[in-house]
Amino acid sequence: MNLIETIGFIAAILTTVAFLPQVYKTWKTKDVSGLSLPMLFIFFSGVSIWLIYGILKDSPSMIFANSITIISSFLLLYFKLKYSK
Amino acid sequence: MNLIETIGFIAAILTTVAFLPQVYKTWKTKDVSGLSLPMLFIFFSGVSIWLIYGILKDSPSMIFANSITIISSFLLLYFKLKYSK
Repeated sequence: MNLIETIGFIAAILTTVAFLPQVYKTWKTKDVSGLSLPMLFIFFSGVSIWLIYGILKDSPSMIFANSITIISSFLLLYFKLKYSK
Repeated sequence: MNLIETIGFIAAILTTVAFLPQVYKTWKTKDVSGLSLPMLFIFFSGVSIWLIYGILKDSPSMIFANSITIISSFLLLYFKLKYSK
């Protein structure tokens, strides 16, 4: 793995891991009042397209990161819809 | 602009725009209880490294998206620290 992809993987791990405490917190507290529904919906759509871009750009870091972030953002979207009053 | 960069720019616009309703909502409501501090901190760090990766990978989409997302995520981190009880 070259230097560029090493940096990419560090970035990928950080932005992927970042959503785990948010998913855990939202799942535990069911506190979704502060989460923006448009944000979650647009973000989920965007991450899906980033994954396509990563595949076309032949970027292992982006494929790795966006595959996992799709799942995290889908879960947050699901929690938001489920727990909103 | 070729097809790959067009797809990248669509993704970039979506994941960049996604944070604007969240920043607006948090700014207006000061409701940060549902936002995870580790998430915001790790995400901000990750986006900063993605920007470096985008520069090294010569990806206009990533440079554009991450430059703006750094600002959004910094604002959310600032709000979280400022409005947390």
